[in-house]
Amino acid sequence: MTLTPDGCAARRRRLLEAWAGSEDALVVATPRNVFHLSGLLTRATLLSGDGTPFLVLERDGRATVVADNWLEAEAGAAHADEAAVWNWYDLRRPAAERHATACAELARMLEGRGVRSVAFEHGVLARPALPRGCEPGGDLAPALARLRETKDPDELALIRRAIRATEAGHDAARRVLRPGMREIDLHAEIESAIARAAGEPVLLLCDLVAGARTGDRGGTPGTNVIREGDPVLVDLFPIVGGYRADLTATLVAGEPTRAQAERRERLHEALAAAEARVRPGARAAEVYEAMRGVLGALPTHAGHGLGLDHPEPPFLVPGSEETLRAGQVIALEPGLYEPGRSGARIEHDYLVTEGGFERLSAHAT
Amino acid sequence: MTLTPDGCAARRRRLLEAWAGSEDALVVATPRNVFHLSGLLTRATLLSGDGTPFLVLERDGRATVVADNWLEAEAGAAHADEAAVWNWYDLRRPAAERHATACAELARMLEGRGVRSVAFEHGVLARPALPRGCEPGGDLAPALARLRETKDPDELALIRRAIRATEAGHDAARRVLRPGMREIDLHAEIESAIARAAGEPVLLLCDLVAGARTGDRGGTPGTNVIREGDPVLVDLFPIVGGYRADLTATLVAGEPTRAQAERRERLHEALAAAEARVRPGARAAEVYEAMRGVLGALPTHAGHGLGLDHPEPPFLVPGSEETLRAGQVIALEPGLYEPGRSGARIEHDYLVTEGGFERLSAHAT
Repeated sequence: MTLTPDGCAARRRRLLEAWAGSEDALVVATPRNVFHLSGLLTRATLLSGDGTPFLVLERDGRATVVADNWLEAEAGAAHADEAAVWNWYDLRRPAAERHATACAELARMLEGRGVRSVAFEHGVLARPALPRGCEPGGDLAPALARLRETKDPDELALIRRAIRATEAGHDAARRVLRPGMREIDLHAEIESAIARAAGEPVLLLCDLVAGARTGDRGGTPGTNVIREGDPVLVDLFPIVGGYRADLTATLVAGEPTRAQAERRERLHEALAAAEARVRPGARAAEVYEAMRGVLGALPTHAGHGLGLDHPEPPFLVPGSEETLRAGQVIALEPGLYEPGRSGARIEHDYLVTEGGFERLSAHAT
Repeated sequence: MTLTPDGCAARRRRLLEAWAGSEDALVVATPRNVFHLSGLLTRATLLSGDGTPFLVLERDGRATVVADNWLEAEAGAAHADEAAVWNWYDLRRPAAERHATACAELARMLEGRGVRSVAFEHGVLARPALPRGCEPGGDLAPALARLRETKDPDELALIRRAIRATEAGHDAARRVLRPGMREIDLHAEIESAIARAAGEPVLLLCDLVAGARTGDRGGTPGTNVIREGDPVLVDLFPIVGGYRADLTATLVAGEPTRAQAERRERLHEALAAAEARVRPGARAAEVYEAMRGVLGALPTHAGHGLGLDHPEPPFLVPGSEETLRAGQVIALEPGLYEPGRSGARIEHDYLVTEGGFERLSAHAT
């Protein structure tokens, strides 16, 4: 399952229609934006994932992916009109520096096409990527970001798939958690469950800590041994097939105390209060205030957008002027924390719909 | 365990001494080079891992890491004279585009220091990273690559640690492999074992395939079910604490046939023949020829350098002019393949020493 040819073509069309500049070509250089517009996915779990593919969009709509030979299969399967594959390392001659060569190859391709001016992501593309005499044009980054704010059906299918796999990770955490195991042992069981459910390697990012560190809202799992009665913060945000899920539960190693149970109740109240504000046109700050209203204090955001990146717009924070729109995917994550002592958080993912929202996740919280 | 203050300082000194240009400052932008020279490690398993830290080296030797607030802890612990931390996302206001803002912040910092000319990695750094009026100087990439070709003691300690964790993955593979399991199930057990041994999340890259796909030299594990008698190619190259190991064994799900056992014998002969050539001054192509001499044909390289990247120089290929040097770390990986049918490979990692080599890995092959 991946992005569809129609979905990629529609996004490229929207980008070209929205672009007011008159440059000969648009060059996309951020891997996740290349994926969004062509389906060419670079994976951190592969050596090819360190390659630098580009997408060149000419004014007549022609789309060309430019990639090295270690991404040949991905480039060939990409939803583009053409794949320009260049030789990085062929196992016969020493390889040149990969990123610099990628820039030089892009420049050569642009020159060959007679491209004289280019719009590109100013903060990403290095100088040698544009041939001599080619005029640097407008910054493509804001337009690419806008294009990603609401999700198309092919993207939603991938987000739902990432959420299903992540739920399997939460199920595993509940099943295997016991006092005496180390945080990293719990992490290993969760990671296994997610990859097994996805049927492919995934990159698991997470907050996974037990005991006092939960009061500091998270952290990376280590050799800390989980003790009887410890709260265990399990916030899983893997990348599965390019897209993110972001689901949290706070477990207890053993029987929850009354205080732990009451804290959980308040988090659910806060989540319900925030959910009740989620609809197209709602202000992001309004969702934040609804959650804070229940919790009294909220040292973090109420949530954030989610998709090819994490966090991404909208940001559910007090200082936001953003309003929600149908098609956005957001995470809501109320938490209660006593720094250095104990904390808890729950989190679900949502699609903003015309009628309000659809909760996408179903793990136990 | 990480890179040491002395190791980082010594590498920065060597870089400055080797740099013939007269630029006011050297800017390092590739995360693995920033780590090499400061110990500031960005990890793919953390959200902060998508940040863009920089290292600025001024002519008087002053080293400053520039990083966003999600890398604040890493920047604070870095072995540099100063950490310049800027605010990307503080959970109160929406975040701006991360990479573009990183460039702007670097430019602001360079301007504040009165830096008027800069050497940098031409193929990596984007235009807005240099302030107006600052002259783009020489390309730092070749000097940074040379600096990484031989390994310092603090780097070797990390490579040894990565190898120990990867050996635990191989032990797990032998222990759990059985017909009926899917490739991804075997992968999950291996990944767990490596992370448990490392005591922290690792990014596992690998070739892990069974049956006919072994004839094509590798691939990513999927839902393919391993059958009785299948060869199972297990080539593990995780990133552990920033450094790589790269260890291969080819297992058999069940009892090896006589042909499989003979193939294994020939791979060991080929490995021994290649090992016998490993010493300072040996030509990389000579090691390749020794391995090919035993195998008759060798459709791949004989091996490659290993460290913060994979593959990296030296490349053990027929078309190489490189010679081995003491302090290099290399992998040797003889393989025999019948495309579309069956294949096998073994691989160990080595340190080139004054006297010849030290085999760093001890997994069963």
